[in-house]
Amino acid sequence: MSQRLVGIDIGGTKIAAGVVDADGTVLAREQLPTPAGGENIAAAVAWLLGRLGADGGGGATVGVAVPGYVSTDHRSVANAANLELKDARLADWIEERADVRAVVLNDANAALWAEFRFGAARGVRDVAMLTVGTGIGGGLLVNGQLVSGAHGWAGEAGHMTVVPDGRPCGCGSRGCLDRYASGTALGHPAASAEDFAELGHWLGYGLSQVAMLLDPELFLLGGGVSAAGAALTDPTERRLAELLAGRGREQTPPVRLAQLGPDAGFIGAAAYAADLLAGGVPAAELPVPAAGRAGA
Amino acid sequence: MSQRLVGIDIGGTKIAAGVVDADGTVLAREQLPTPAGGENIAAAVAWLLGRLGADGGGGATVGVAVPGYVSTDHRSVANAANLELKDARLADWIEERADVRAVVLNDANAALWAEFRFGAARGVRDVAMLTVGTGIGGGLLVNGQLVSGAHGWAGEAGHMTVVPDGRPCGCGSRGCLDRYASGTALGHPAASAEDFAELGHWLGYGLSQVAMLLDPELFLLGGGVSAAGAALTDPTERRLAELLAGRGREQTPPVRLAQLGPDAGFIGAAAYAADLLAGGVPAAELPVPAAGRAGA
Repeated sequence: MSQRLVGIDIGGTKIAAGVVDADGTVLAREQLPTPAGGENIAAAVAWLLGRLGADGGGGATVGVAVPGYVSTDHRSVANAANLELKDARLADWIEERADVRAVVLNDANAALWAEFRFGAARGVRDVAMLTVGTGIGGGLLVNGQLVSGAHGWAGEAGHMTVVPDGRPCGCGSRGCLDRYASGTALGHPAASAEDFAELGHWLGYGLSQVAMLLDPELFLLGGGVSAAGAALTDPTERRLAELLAGRGREQTPPVRLAQLGPDAGFIGAAAYAADLLAGGVPAAELPVPAAGRAGA
Repeated sequence: MSQRLVGIDIGGTKIAAGVVDADGTVLAREQLPTPAGGENIAAAVAWLLGRLGADGGGGATVGVAVPGYVSTDHRSVANAANLELKDARLADWIEERADVRAVVLNDANAALWAEFRFGAARGVRDVAMLTVGTGIGGGLLVNGQLVSGAHGWAGEAGHMTVVPDGRPCGCGSRGCLDRYASGTALGHPAASAEDFAELGHWLGYGLSQVAMLLDPELFLLGGGVSAAGAALTDPTERRLAELLAGRGREQTPPVRLAQLGPDAGFIGAAAYAADLLAGGVPAAELPVPAAGRAGA
């Protein structure tokens, strides 16, 4: 029997669950509306695992993607405003209700991991992904590893400043990329080539800032607005190339579309959890070389 | 006999070489003026290795820090404008002249590695360091690994934009952090508390952008201007904290001074080369998990 991986994607309105094979192909899926409260969410997850036949016999590994900040040990949700969860021991609550081992991660990171393993970023080790929807989310891959940062807050390219003292942002700051390049920035649904050109103008600027700092090999755009396809990626890549060439960087990372769509969250969560427990993900778990013992 | 590590720091005016022990303590040092041309530089390095007794008997490992972009295999200098080197096979040239194994890396990355192993960032896995001198250089540590990026261009926080369409910068762009927060930004040597407050104002802004993207645990300031000490770090940290609090990030990474001073380049190069060859540095060399074989 080939390996079956199980992933969960907890969104603001629904919880999507799926079984994928080792190539990332979806073998089965289930979903439920998202209930209120962390323990109810864990119960819904356990129910979905039961429906998928993934809740018993040998403690299967389950990856759980959440729209929020996650503890570096992948056990708790530090903060997920949409779900009203704060310091929620989600992995514990799931494991109390199903015979599984749960690994919690950020949903943008899960989507990026799916693209890295099975999609548009397959085998590319330095990638920055922006999900452009009603807001802008993001994930970073550096040296083939997800970047979570010291508090799980990394990847917020959408809240880098593009216009000092610009439009007020829900995050409390002003002039964030999110306010100029997201689906809500235009004040109406993006529909025309001019609309996408304007979003691309700002996205290209934002990506140029990321490029100066991280020099990724590839940029990926996902999220609802990216359904526009080349109408969005072309102006974004043009603006990015123009800004980088002006700084003497001859090579511009391509700006491509994410490939895995709305399933990316549970696919990536499933793969990441399996990779992590198999030791294939040397992320935060990697031991620090002992200080003072160079090359020992 | 305890382990002896050998490092070289090639600067625009001089080449510094040193032997350090496994705690990073400098046991011996030598230097020479930097000659013109890559092969002459390699010959000078070989001469310094001879003086240090590190050029034979068993193919010692030597770390070589250069002020420029380095190939991801640590063998060549892709571009070092100050040294007028481009696609220079520096490791080969050194190995032809001395019985050593050479590992080439960027000098800001070397300095950061020294701080990570022996200095102000000991054991801290997510660190952003800015060297503030006549210009602003930078290095990044993510998940305990140096970040080089796809082309060796990562870490250029000094050339992120802080003022759109602002002051022209030598990089070809406008409004770079470098033009507002470096030693030359004021138009006179930074001397007063007001001078450092101004530099700190801009540095804090620049670091806030890095924080949104990478969420480091610690910021380090090095370079000549950092000799000002708390006169520089205090206003920088105040501004950073103000900007992050405005975005709902309750914890601000501390802004500390680098500890190892001008020796950091050769100390870090020595340690990095030893760590890399001992397998303790899972950076670009780390194998990518085979795509399509999740958790295999």
